[in-house]
Amino acid sequence: MTSSAVQAPVARLVLRAPYLIFLADIRETGFAKTGLGIAQWCPEKCVGQLRLPGCAVDARLPDLDIAAARAAGARSLILGAAPIGGDIKPNWVETLCRAAEAGLDIVSGLHRPLSRIPGLADAAARGGGRLVEVRVPPPDIPIASGRKRSGLRLLAVGTDCAVGKKYSALSIARELQRRGLPATFRATGQTGIMIAGEGMPIDAVVCDFTAGAAEILSPDNAADHWDVIEGQGSLFHPAYAGVSLGLLHGSQADAIVVCHEAEREQMAGYAGYPVPDLQDCIDLHLQMGRRTNPSIRCVGVSINTARLPADRRRAYLEQCARRTGMPCVDPLVEGPAAIVDRMLGVCA
Amino acid sequence: MTSSAVQAPVARLVLRAPYLIFLADIRETGFAKTGLGIAQWCPEKCVGQLRLPGCAVDARLPDLDIAAARAAGARSLILGAAPIGGDIKPNWVETLCRAAEAGLDIVSGLHRPLSRIPGLADAAARGGGRLVEVRVPPPDIPIASGRKRSGLRLLAVGTDCAVGKKYSALSIARELQRRGLPATFRATGQTGIMIAGEGMPIDAVVCDFTAGAAEILSPDNAADHWDVIEGQGSLFHPAYAGVSLGLLHGSQADAIVVCHEAEREQMAGYAGYPVPDLQDCIDLHLQMGRRTNPSIRCVGVSINTARLPADRRRAYLEQCARRTGMPCVDPLVEGPAAIVDRMLGVCA
Repeated sequence: MTSSAVQAPVARLVLRAPYLIFLADIRETGFAKTGLGIAQWCPEKCVGQLRLPGCAVDARLPDLDIAAARAAGARSLILGAAPIGGDIKPNWVETLCRAAEAGLDIVSGLHRPLSRIPGLADAAARGGGRLVEVRVPPPDIPIASGRKRSGLRLLAVGTDCAVGKKYSALSIARELQRRGLPATFRATGQTGIMIAGEGMPIDAVVCDFTAGAAEILSPDNAADHWDVIEGQGSLFHPAYAGVSLGLLHGSQADAIVVCHEAEREQMAGYAGYPVPDLQDCIDLHLQMGRRTNPSIRCVGVSINTARLPADRRRAYLEQCARRTGMPCVDPLVEGPAAIVDRMLGVCA
Repeated sequence: MTSSAVQAPVARLVLRAPYLIFLADIRETGFAKTGLGIAQWCPEKCVGQLRLPGCAVDARLPDLDIAAARAAGARSLILGAAPIGGDIKPNWVETLCRAAEAGLDIVSGLHRPLSRIPGLADAAARGGGRLVEVRVPPPDIPIASGRKRSGLRLLAVGTDCAVGKKYSALSIARELQRRGLPATFRATGQTGIMIAGEGMPIDAVVCDFTAGAAEILSPDNAADHWDVIEGQGSLFHPAYAGVSLGLLHGSQADAIVVCHEAEREQMAGYAGYPVPDLQDCIDLHLQMGRRTNPSIRCVGVSINTARLPADRRRAYLEQCARRTGMPCVDPLVEGPAAIVDRMLGVCA
């Protein structure tokens, strides 16, 4: 265990908006999820999209070249495309270098470091912009203190990976803001960070510091302010449960929403590991979360029902609600209002 | 979550024995714990100690200079001293450079990288030895697979940090070996790694990979072989529980021993966080550990009784044994035989 708490001021991962979304020559929406998600969740941060010949996806933003994006105020080019393998295709390089030379920050969540793209570092040096790796945590993350912070926090947790934690957290934060309540979405994954413009890539933090990283992600705040925190992994996941627990402890969640995909029976990619029962998932999170916040409670279940036939959807949600005693919604269909009602009712 | 499983062969952190233990000019045993621990636990790996003028600690090894250590077969100089702040003192540098120039590996668990010590990298290049940072994990650690491995595993867990997990694991491994049974101590901290000559600095691993690192630390083995794994942190620790959970899941422990310090009521350095009840600690580890090994069980409690008055020791251990139904021993006093008896009885 690392013994020295770092007292230095903490550097933060902060992006510069507005964005030019680079969709490259992607032909299938599945490989442009990052770019499309940003355009959907924060169109106000996006001045346009940049598409290469052959691109077949559309974020419904104005098509701009680099000069036009610059003129429109763009400060960052966001790599919104993620081909198989997480690498950057050779025919993208010239565009990226020209954007860097024009002074745009180049923002990437891909595995391959931007500094290894031929010519890009030099172009950025000439243009005066930054190469920003969304997967790289800021320096000087402290060891968690366990000290209770002011303000309120909701954490979106899950029965597995990729069950809608980011979507649920975003929609709850938006619903709070729509009601005129003070709320901030706190991102822990790369797409979330690009949407929020800042955040903590929690799964890339050295494990001694995971809870500490979660603590600085949601600092002290006004007593009635909600941080709505994007969860990662699952306490039941054979590979990632440690990340999930560090995030739960450091978040000191006052409330959790459990996210789940209807009809998923096995953990994705982990044959032999069943997806936990919803109530077991609620119970374990409350049990573990009490260690750093004794008043933690569950305020709802957020279910991705896309794989359910339309005629079974409502019965499925009602059955979940009966069994858990919680509001159970698909935020994409019903919206998160029922969860937000419960959360404000029990935590205010 | 990182999505690509790495298939490449895994590099391992392996030290070269025999060792020359460098105690520098340390005056208090507390700052030479690493060196003294190595000399105590693996004297057969140590050809001697190297002490500078003013050194007031003694590992009871022959005093050798670098030439004599080389002649006696030494292959590594182990930095056995850790002054406050974890740095290397200026007056140690000349000795370290001469050792590197003579071809010894220089092995350090201190925070300051060896590569930043003036002249040391050049000296190592000339001598042909390595600069080995015990705090730096090997590259290419995979994401945990959750696949059940062959062989048996015991994990020493704890109610807090620094309660005797390393000592307990070492003494249990030695007891198994003394009985002629196949057993390997698996180290997860810096001193443990130096004693074992290899291991995994688990708390320095990026958190997405913690359970994967634990998986490669204790690979498939013969059906009756025991890996005795040094635990880290505590599932109840507000900063380190995520490390502990990743290690528990990846270890797929068949058995746990819960380590505890008598009379410790608060988590060290965490006011307001009480040390958990022994039975609660056993229960939570079994509950969480079942996710990757449904047949996990507790086989004993290992208690550091140093702070108890002699006349209360036995009553304290008997009370713990009554309350938990487990053999409860101080391995430093009674030895771990009672725990090993239980472990072999229930897990064989």
